[in-house]
Amino acid sequence: MIISAIKHIANKHFCTAIEDYKFLFRIHTGKNDMDSVVLHMQDKNLPVEMIDTRMSYNMEKVSADRYSDCYEVCVGVRPGTRCIRYFFELTDMSGSKIYFGNEEFFDDIITDIDRMFNCTCQFRNEERFDVPKWAAGSVAYQIFPARYATTKYVSEKEWYKAPITNNTDLKGDIWGIINTLDHIVELGVDVIYLTPVFMAGSTHKYDTIDYYRVDPAFGTNDDLKELVRRCHELGKKVILDGVFNHTSTHFFAFEDVMRNGASSRYRNWYYIEDFPIFTGSMKRPPNYLSFSYFGGMPKLNLTNPETAEYFIDVGKYWIQECDIDGWRLDVGDEISHDFMKKFRKAVKEIKSDVLIVGEDWQYGNDYLDGDEWDTIMNYSFFRMVKDFIAEEKITAEDAMNMIGHSKGFFHAKVFPVLWNLIDSHDTPRFLNLCGENREKQKLAAAMMLLLPGMPMIYYGDEYGMTGAKDPDCRRGMVWDKKYRDADTYEWYRNLIRVRKECPAIIKGKITSYLTDNENGLIVYECEDSDGRYAVIFHGKNCIVSLDKYRGKTELLNNTEFTGSIDGFGTVVIKL
Amino acid sequence: MIISAIKHIANKHFCTAIEDYKFLFRIHTGKNDMDSVVLHMQDKNLPVEMIDTRMSYNMEKVSADRYSDCYEVCVGVRPGTRCIRYFFELTDMSGSKIYFGNEEFFDDIITDIDRMFNCTCQFRNEERFDVPKWAAGSVAYQIFPARYATTKYVSEKEWYKAPITNNTDLKGDIWGIINTLDHIVELGVDVIYLTPVFMAGSTHKYDTIDYYRVDPAFGTNDDLKELVRRCHELGKKVILDGVFNHTSTHFFAFEDVMRNGASSRYRNWYYIEDFPIFTGSMKRPPNYLSFSYFGGMPKLNLTNPETAEYFIDVGKYWIQECDIDGWRLDVGDEISHDFMKKFRKAVKEIKSDVLIVGEDWQYGNDYLDGDEWDTIMNYSFFRMVKDFIAEEKITAEDAMNMIGHSKGFFHAKVFPVLWNLIDSHDTPRFLNLCGENREKQKLAAAMMLLLPGMPMIYYGDEYGMTGAKDPDCRRGMVWDKKYRDADTYEWYRNLIRVRKECPAIIKGKITSYLTDNENGLIVYECEDSDGRYAVIFHGKNCIVSLDKYRGKTELLNNTEFTGSIDGFGTVVIKL
Repeated sequence: MIISAIKHIANKHFCTAIEDYKFLFRIHTGKNDMDSVVLHMQDKNLPVEMIDTRMSYNMEKVSADRYSDCYEVCVGVRPGTRCIRYFFELTDMSGSKIYFGNEEFFDDIITDIDRMFNCTCQFRNEERFDVPKWAAGSVAYQIFPARYATTKYVSEKEWYKAPITNNTDLKGDIWGIINTLDHIVELGVDVIYLTPVFMAGSTHKYDTIDYYRVDPAFGTNDDLKELVRRCHELGKKVILDGVFNHTSTHFFAFEDVMRNGASSRYRNWYYIEDFPIFTGSMKRPPNYLSFSYFGGMPKLNLTNPETAEYFIDVGKYWIQECDIDGWRLDVGDEISHDFMKKFRKAVKEIKSDVLIVGEDWQYGNDYLDGDEWDTIMNYSFFRMVKDFIAEEKITAEDAMNMIGHSKGFFHAKVFPVLWNLIDSHDTPRFLNLCGENREKQKLAAAMMLLLPGMPMIYYGDEYGMTGAKDPDCRRGMVWDKKYRDADTYEWYRNLIRVRKECPAIIKGKITSYLTDNENGLIVYECEDSDGRYAVIFHGKNCIVSLDKYRGKTELLNNTEFTGSIDGFGTVVIKL
Repeated sequence: MIISAIKHIANKHFCTAIEDYKFLFRIHTGKNDMDSVVLHMQDKNLPVEMIDTRMSYNMEKVSADRYSDCYEVCVGVRPGTRCIRYFFELTDMSGSKIYFGNEEFFDDIITDIDRMFNCTCQFRNEERFDVPKWAAGSVAYQIFPARYATTKYVSEKEWYKAPITNNTDLKGDIWGIINTLDHIVELGVDVIYLTPVFMAGSTHKYDTIDYYRVDPAFGTNDDLKELVRRCHELGKKVILDGVFNHTSTHFFAFEDVMRNGASSRYRNWYYIEDFPIFTGSMKRPPNYLSFSYFGGMPKLNLTNPETAEYFIDVGKYWIQECDIDGWRLDVGDEISHDFMKKFRKAVKEIKSDVLIVGEDWQYGNDYLDGDEWDTIMNYSFFRMVKDFIAEEKITAEDAMNMIGHSKGFFHAKVFPVLWNLIDSHDTPRFLNLCGENREKQKLAAAMMLLLPGMPMIYYGDEYGMTGAKDPDCRRGMVWDKKYRDADTYEWYRNLIRVRKECPAIIKGKITSYLTDNENGLIVYECEDSDGRYAVIFHGKNCIVSLDKYRGKTELLNNTEFTGSIDGFGTVVIKL
């Protein structure tokens, strides 16, 4: 037994309140090391001799990564239970057994409650991590407003200009989005996420000048309100982009600092090293903290209570004013936990099911334990599809191990709502990454839309748009049919349709699972009360036979499955 | 290489701000698995081609437990650095190498910054965990006021009654403590921790009736103020016991609930299931949440903001009123994190170097990351000495592995201030646990006082007091010499003296280390700029030779070391 690989910490991450007085226990072990893992549990305060509360539960292997397995079990306790004590009984493949309680390993069963792990059920239940119910199962759609849709006259040449090498052109607007909501409906997505819409100096608007005003180039505050109202009528949610890490140098507070120097009352809204303000040059960084050493985006000091209050008010304002459904927080991983905690509390008090999405290219550590964000833009998913499909440098097994790692690593409430993505405004288009191979993009989109998570489609991917890295990945949305790839569009629509019609694919129990590295093949079967399915991803340019499913109904194309896949492809079989 | 044993999470626990822009990185590996571990690091935002910020640092094995090693390195970065990216290079004993970054293992060195771990230096620095400076190096002394010292007349028979089988006698008082402060000074401890002193129904006073009033049996609020003043004059700190998990049923709020039932305005100060209030019987628990199902101690609802505010005010009041130096929080692990965070913030705002000590018989998970407690009563230390010395059921190596585990597990700021203890008012006296074997107690005391931590001596242990479990462990303090064991007292004084005179023993670098299970022997050498020492613990009733140190000065007895230890013993050699 690889005892050093066994991981469980008696905290809210490894023992999580899931529903009212229902707790999910999690433990990691070495890969394929265990034959069985059993959770033993009893009330802390009722002596066994008086009332025997001892219970034991078999734990189930729910995921695996390259080196470890993750076991879980969900257990209910009597409401109001103050504390339970628990320990694990681990039996490896050779039959050898060990007991693990309170950071110690024992050869014999544990009876001393102080040698068991503790879970204070009652307060952990009170501090339960609740993610908005609407998020799981939803598909998000990212819009870059400046290049999405417009009500203004723009020549075809200008709108479809490619490649885009600078950010100076700016024509999209909010009424453009409103006028094209039928596309959102037809595609079948549930949530639109708009990159920043507030008054700013650039096309991308990540350098905010006025957080209380929609950029005049995009429209008015009323236009935004109307967009949200129309979306809600259509049953769609709207998420805005909150840029609270930094501002523009033209934000009133920074302007005051530039004007009044050390005597500015906003001096402590930023991290100014000395005066006069120097906004940086190629040779010397600015003399204040900023985003990525870029002088145009001075870093806000959110530890200053006045500053924090201002931006929390911004967070509340747009919920109250426009009834938005969530905030995506830009540069989330560079903003303090203290601010995030206050921000969450404040916005959830106003609208309890607001979704908070952090931008974090890593794993959102510390932010995702229930009192800060609800989820993150899942760039680990992006890296997985890039490695497996675009660059073909990892195996099918590696790819699934990365998904397995996420399942075992993220909080159980977060994993089903991770914003899985294959590209964004901050990456090249996936089609560009895979050398314009549409079949590869279609496979990546399938993995995004058919694996657990809250997928985020970057506008235009559904029409086969391409583009290299920023700013080229932000080309004008292809409203003219001649620029669209109809096959890609049908594919996205079918993926979303199957995802919604067959929830077992996302949420069901996996009943069998295999990967075949030689053929780049991933096959799993899943089921719930609504049905049984086989999902097959094929990530190699070769022919693979799947005789087992020949003749059965393939749901994405609604045809009879031929029994083989030629090249990159995805198949969903109704069993 | 046991890759599954490698543990690092990119959070504030594994990458900790230690001083201004100095970070401690920690990683766990399989036991004796690695030949070297190197930390690689670079600025996130300065491309290597522009300014090469890449650095690498050898990590040092700082501790080990039964199955794992812990490596650490402390690294400074330029003040104001926003983000660094880092990864580890691990080389095992066979020379095989792996790179570990951002939750993934790689065969080749990592150059993609998104595949590295992230540390946002600036905000992590802002949210640094600062433990009061005075705590490290201090020795605490626990006083149970009802049985410690009194100004009243009590017959010798009554005061020294043993065993104590009930809690009804009550004579100790605060002026008793004041009048005997010379004992505190002579013993050499730095901090006194008083179990509860506020008005309550019982001897132990864990059922508080009035949080703003010292129990009349103990004296007045002014007496307490005087005690703290005198202690401060003597350079001693005073810590009080905060019982905020529950109250007495005679606390005004619960009395109001009992009187007015569902219409009481204090109804939500508790967790009442239904009315009328039923305080419980042998057959049926009370119809409200309570401490350990005991009706006399109804559980407070600290999620009710009004209730939380009341008890945070109590926390502040005694600091403002009496200038106390800390709070020990009773039943700490059953109180919500939300309350603890608010409590810490509020009391530290008033007096920044107040020490917050949680009662937690486990490992204080989630409470010890910098925004709740500073330390815990370390019952894992108690279990170690009980197993190793009292019951002789674990080896010398196991014992040191438990210390090693604590060092690798606890936050680096917490480990040096853990309240190591060998007994308390909640356990039998250690002397009782080891069958009245004074040599065993002396060894346990030596491990407590000579290993890193903030040791807590339970009153009277220094005189060789004994007593079975509560209430017998709370006998009258032995002020009469005829009840004292002079040898034990001298031993405690010498341990404290050596601890203070030779800080290298607690804080120095360990330069060699061995355990010998057959002889129950632990030997290590340590040094800092002040000197070099060998510390030897012998936990077996046999003779062991230590020729290497024969003839050198033994510091505890200030004699020449004979070269052997007969039975349980402790030796500190000046090298």
